[in-house]
Order: sequence, then C-alpha cells, then structure tokens
Amino acid sequence: MPVGTIATVKAMDQNEMKELGAEILLSNTYHLYLRPGHEIIKQLGGLHQFMSWEKPILTDSGGFQVFSLSRLRKISEEGVEFRSHIDGSLHCLTPELVMEIQAALGSDIAMAFDECTPYPATREYALNSLQLTTKWAERCKKSQELRGKRQGGLITHNSKLITHSLFGIVQGGVYPDLRKQSAEELIEMDFDGYAIGGLSVGEPKDLMYEMINFTTPLLPRDRPRYLMGIGDLMDVLEAVSAGIDMFDCVMPTRNARNGTLFTSQGRICIRRAEFKSDPGPLDPDCGCYTCRSYSRAYLRHLFMNREILSMRLNTLHNLHFYLDFFRKMREAIGNGEFDSFRKKWTPVLQNNFHEG
Amino acid sequence: MPVGTIATVKAMDQNEMKELGAEILLSNTYHLYLRPGHEIIKQLGGLHQFMSWEKPILTDSGGFQVFSLSRLRKISEEGVEFRSHIDGSLHCLTPELVMEIQAALGSDIAMAFDECTPYPATREYALNSLQLTTKWAERCKKSQELRGKRQGGLITHNSKLITHSLFGIVQGGVYPDLRKQSAEELIEMDFDGYAIGGLSVGEPKDLMYEMINFTTPLLPRDRPRYLMGIGDLMDVLEAVSAGIDMFDCVMPTRNARNGTLFTSQGRICIRRAEFKSDPGPLDPDCGCYTCRSYSRAYLRHLFMNREILSMRLNTLHNLHFYLDFFRKMREAIGNGEFDSFRKKWTPVLQNNFHEG
Repeated sequence: MPVGTIATVKAMDQNEMKELGAEILLSNTYHLYLRPGHEIIKQLGGLHQFMSWEKPILTDSGGFQVFSLSRLRKISEEGVEFRSHIDGSLHCLTPELVMEIQAALGSDIAMAFDECTPYPATREYALNSLQLTTKWAERCKKSQELRGKRQGGLITHNSKLITHSLFGIVQGGVYPDLRKQSAEELIEMDFDGYAIGGLSVGEPKDLMYEMINFTTPLLPRDRPRYLMGIGDLMDVLEAVSAGIDMFDCVMPTRNARNGTLFTSQGRICIRRAEFKSDPGPLDPDCGCYTCRSYSRAYLRHLFMNREILSMRLNTLHNLHFYLDFFRKMREAIGNGEFDSFRKKWTPVLQNNFHEG
Repeated sequence: MPVGTIATVKAMDQNEMKELGAEILLSNTYHLYLRPGHEIIKQLGGLHQFMSWEKPILTDSGGFQVFSLSRLRKISEEGVEFRSHIDGSLHCLTPELVMEIQAALGSDIAMAFDECTPYPATREYALNSLQLTTKWAERCKKSQELRGKRQGGLITHNSKLITHSLFGIVQGGVYPDLRKQSAEELIEMDFDGYAIGGLSVGEPKDLMYEMINFTTPLLPRDRPRYLMGIGDLMDVLEAVSAGIDMFDCVMPTRNARNGTLFTSQGRICIRRAEFKSDPGPLDPDCGCYTCRSYSRAYLRHLFMNREILSMRLNTLHNLHFYLDFFRKMREAIGNGEFDSFRKKWTPVLQNNFHEG
C-alpha cells in the first residue's frame, strides 16, 4: 500500500496512482483527525470522495503517530491524551473515537487502536502494553458492532451502507510468548484481518525477523496478515516467505524525494556526479513515464535544483518499481515460484552500487 | 509563454504542458549557464532533448537575472562580471558568450544581451545604459551571423541545422525619446523580433502603460513584439491593445504555489476558511483536470498542509486559465472583437472577491 498520510500520496495525483495500478492506499486517522478534521471529511462524503479515490483505503488507527509525533502523551486505560504536533492543542484519542473517526472517513479497512510498544521495553512494560492493546481492541470491536447495528453499516464512497473491515494489531515487543498471547487474544475476538505492529522500531534486524517468523504462522491463514510500516524489499521477501500478505511503507516515496531510486540493477543515488551528463534512462528495463521520457542527467539536474518535478518523477518511478515488484511477486507465488523469485531479486536488492 | 526558468515549469511535467496546449516555453540563459552548464546540455543534444520538449523554446539572455540575482556586478563595455547566486563563483557574461550559450542550448528564439535599466534612473544613466544595450545588441547580431556562416546555422532539437531567431531588446527607462532612440537603433540592425525590456521594475503603472503605448507602435508590425516579464492580465489587455504579441510571466505559476488562483469569477485565495468544507470545484466554468477532479475543500486542505500536490493542481489550473485566456483573446482579435473581449474580462480581472 502506497502511503497517503494526509489524503495524498506525496508528489502524486490520484490519476497517476490509478495508472500505476495501485489497488489500495493507506491513509492516517491521527493526521486527518487533526487536519482537516474527520467531521469535515464526513460532511464532504467521506475520504474517497474528498480525495477523489475510488479504490480501497486502509486507515491506520493513529496509534503509531500518537506515540511518534505528538507531545505530552498521557496514556491511561481510557485512551491517550496528547498535544497536536501542528498547533499544540490538547486532544484525547480513545478506541471509540478512533473508530468513530475511521467510520466518518469511510475507510474500507479500519485498524484497531493500539499502543505501539517501544524498543527497548522490559518484559513487564511489553506485557502491560499488550494487555492495554487487547482491551482497546475489544472496545474497537464493540464500538464497530454497535455502529453497525445502529446504522446498518458505514457509509462508503459509493454511498452504499456496508460495514468496513476491522483489523486487530498484534503487539508484544520482542518477547515470543507475549506475541503469542497478543495474537491469541485478538484471534479470540475474530477480526477481519490481523496486523503485526511494533516492529522496525529500533530493534536489530535478526530480532525483527525472528518476531515476524514466529508471529505470522500464529495468525489465521484465511485472513489477511499485514506487517505494518515495513517496506525494505529484503524484509518484504523475508516476511512474505513467513506468510505476510500486506505491507505499507513510505520507503518508495520518501526515498524518491531524497533522490534514492530503485532500479532493476540496484539502488541509484541520483545526485551522484557521474550522472551529470548521462543521457540514458534511469532504468533501461523500466517502462514508467520517468524512464520513458527523461534522462538521468535531467533527473539529476532537477534533483540538484530541488525542483518539484524531481520529486514527482522520482516518486512515480519508485512507486512503479514497488508496485511492479509486488505484482511479479504475487505472480511468482501463484506459480509456486516464490523461492526462485526471492533468489533472483536478493542480489539486486542488496546492490547499492550507485549509493552516494 | 509559461516560464521554465531552469528547464522545468515549476510543478509541471512536460506532458502536462503539452496537454495544456502550451506552444512555446521560456527558459533562462543565466540559470542554465550556471547549472547544469550549457556545455552539458549541448552534449546531451540541446535543451529540447535535455528536457523532453519538442515545441519552441525562447531563452532569455540573462541580462535581467544578472542584475536581479547575482552579487558583485561590475558592468563594463566588455560585459558583466558577477558572482553566482548559487555558490559565489566568479563569472563574466559578454554578448558573445550569451549567444554561444543560447546556441549551445539550441533555443528557437534567442534574446540579445541587454542591461535592464533600473527604476528610478537619471536620464544620463538611462542614456548610457541604452547605448550599452545597443552596442551589445550589435555584438550579439554579429556573433550570430558569424556562427551562422561558420556552421550553416545552429543545431536545434530536430537535429537540422537552422538559424534560430534573435530578438533585440528596447531599453531607455521611462524617457520616451530614449525609448525611441533605442528602438530605432535596434530596427536599423534588423532583428527577427523586438522586445520591450526594463518595465515593471518598480515604476508607477501609468508610467509603464505610457511607455508601452509609446514604444510598441515604433516597432515593425511584421515582426513579433514582445513585452518582457509582464503577465498581470489587466496589463496584458493594455499591451495587446497597443500591439504587443508576446508575453512571459511567472505570475500564473508563482501565484499558484502561493495559493492565489484565477477563475472565471475573479481571483480566489484558496487558503481562506470559507473553503474548508466547500464541495464545489475551484471554477465551475473550467474544464481543467483540477476543476474536473477535486473540490475547493480538498485544494484548501492540500494547500494548508503545503503538499506537493497542492502546487501541482494549482499550477495546472492557473496555466490552463492563462493559456485559455490567450487562446480566446487571439480568437477575439482574429474576429475583430478585441474591444468587447477586453470589456468583458476587465471586471473579472479586477475582481479579487476571494482575496485573503
């Protein structure tokens, strides 16, 4: 899922996202609640209509952002009190409010409110944290069921009343038994899908892999399994082999704006002097608009001048690369060829021959 | 002419410019000379190929930028010594070098090197300045003729050797007799077109109009007459009525990035609170992608968050508005209906009902 935090995938327009073949976007409860406000978006017909995007939208619950962005957090069983990172105003997010916001947005997949356990965390902290996440997940589920009964579902972009999906988020830090406990408690509640949260928050990579490989098989195979916030493609290969189905990450878009571009040969840092007069396309094997229309020399020129077009063309290319990678990976999985797919791509993904 | 100072119309891509119906872009000698350098662009096949733009390009000579952007200018008859606004490096632009740069870029219309007389300037300063501009114009003309003889013309984007056009620039400050002297000296040299420079540099508007109305009729009717750097549409109407054929201005693009948008009802400042939940299109009478696809509320949201998509959608709309205005104006002129066109548009252009 390309990330459109505040109802826009940075530097892209919705038509381009459609042409790129994106099938779902991720947007964010915390950000849209603060600005422009979920009531305004509801009034305007929901997030799909607001941003002119007809395909599915998954909204993160804001759990992660409330811990990473806001100031003066006060966590209690009730919820999280915090100050906006924009204007310092005081707010309180509760599981019920988070569900109300996501209903107002009309998101297709809502995420339960969770505490993203930091790293490092003691076993005791991680246990208390996952228990809180479980309680909040219960309240999210109940809140959704009540809303469903009250109005027969939620308004989506096509104005039909249907119930959106709700995913629970497994926490538990880096403690396998706590991950197991969290997963079991959530599965007991029967969510539409399950996410693994609280990874890639500073822990060593082998510990992250251990947690992914341990936790994923605990989740029901007949429900989507979603690894939150991880998008390094080497990590993706590991996670897919463990059974993960869904990802979101700002990596393709943020890297693009910083001039790091993914190609079939490896990563390229477009600001490198060697590209100053390079007439070739960014990636000769790529069919995206950027590669069809512009040279490395021009892309470097735009980047060095911090031109908006630099961010556009780079983002378009990286998203094309990512979406294409996932399309090919799905195809390989369908053909029972995931292992050879992984073997083929591993050296490419490790090749930073042009890294600056 | 939309302005693509450093080989990109800010926030747009070349495909969009084509779809908008732009028939010519303006780019800039000073900027491209400093970065990435005209030799690199020449090596890459010229500016058209470098930026993937097949239609005509006019390049400003850098006279204006050397005076407005660079530091430590030392003007002599030879040329202008200055320090780059980017890295402080020392450079000297001469008429010959300016022509060499524009030839390397392969621009379709090159501008002669001029001194942009500041305002206010004494009569004596303005006289010396215009005499310098005349001498430089002669050297530009000679330089172009020599190059034409030497190589049978200049390389353009389609790889055919043809000579590009060269326009002279009328200076003379706000002194009608000096404007007349400048125009006559340039006409004597027989340029392909004539520009009026040194206006909109701080002088009162009535003085600017006086100069436009006085100078334009002095220029040959069978050559393009180009008013440099002026793009306020009220000024454009005045200038067209005086006989001006060509304009360039950053107004549509810069205003777009600042959130000021042109509509068939007048100017709109998109950040105004009244648009917070406005579901309507920016301009109901506009057929551009922005107006067809997004609401004022969404445009305001993007603007308040300084999103890249805000600059894109706003720029697209403003350029569409401008290019459409000029298309309609040309049609009105062709039908002998310019006066009623001007009457119809004057109240709209003066209407800033939504100005913040």
